[in-house]
Amino acid sequence: MVLEHVPLEVIPGSEAEFEAAFDVARHEVANSPGCRSIRLARCVETPNRYLLLIEWNSLADHVDGFRNSEAFTRWRGLVARFWDPLPTVLHFSDVVRMDDVTADD
Amino acid sequence: MVLEHVPLEVIPGSEAEFEAAFDVARHEVANSPGCRSIRLARCVETPNRYLLLIEWNSLADHVDGFRNSEAFTRWRGLVARFWDPLPTVLHFSDVVRMDDVTADD
Repeated sequence: MVLEHVPLEVIPGSEAEFEAAFDVARHEVANSPGCRSIRLARCVETPNRYLLLIEWNSLADHVDGFRNSEAFTRWRGLVARFWDPLPTVLHFSDVVRMDDVTADD
Repeated sequence: MVLEHVPLEVIPGSEAEFEAAFDVARHEVANSPGCRSIRLARCVETPNRYLLLIEWNSLADHVDGFRNSEAFTRWRGLVARFWDPLPTVLHFSDVVRMDDVTADD
């Protein structure tokens, strides 16, 4: 599994329009072979910053599969116009995960 | 719930030592009230880059609670010496999550 990491800067004032477009566009990613999960989160400190995290079964599912698909063209057509600058995409492999931590609180 | 986002640059050559130190230090975070999950992942493209993602019940659990605790001092004492520069920490709130996506592959 590989985690695609995309820090986004959305043109200030277009956040609501971007979120509405993303709500449509995310299905182009979700329906692509090898996609496991999609998460979009908004920055608390700087509200026009977002974080997009997408899990793929493999790096190839993203870079060879999705990026060469018509779905990718549709995805970019829906959301890329809200991004300035275009994001730098990186991929990460898990070292350690602790899910459902239950601290004594 | 708030997602703490920490991009890390580890001094090249010290990655294995950092990961061993993190494996001890992560319990200082996990045992802090309000901590939900911890994830450390390593960059595919640039292997001395890491991504640390920590979920907290609230922003206050992180910034008022953990950062003012003795556990935070112990945590930093174990892992911060591997980071150059010190990271910029941001917090994010979920806009949309699609977990366990099952594409037709």
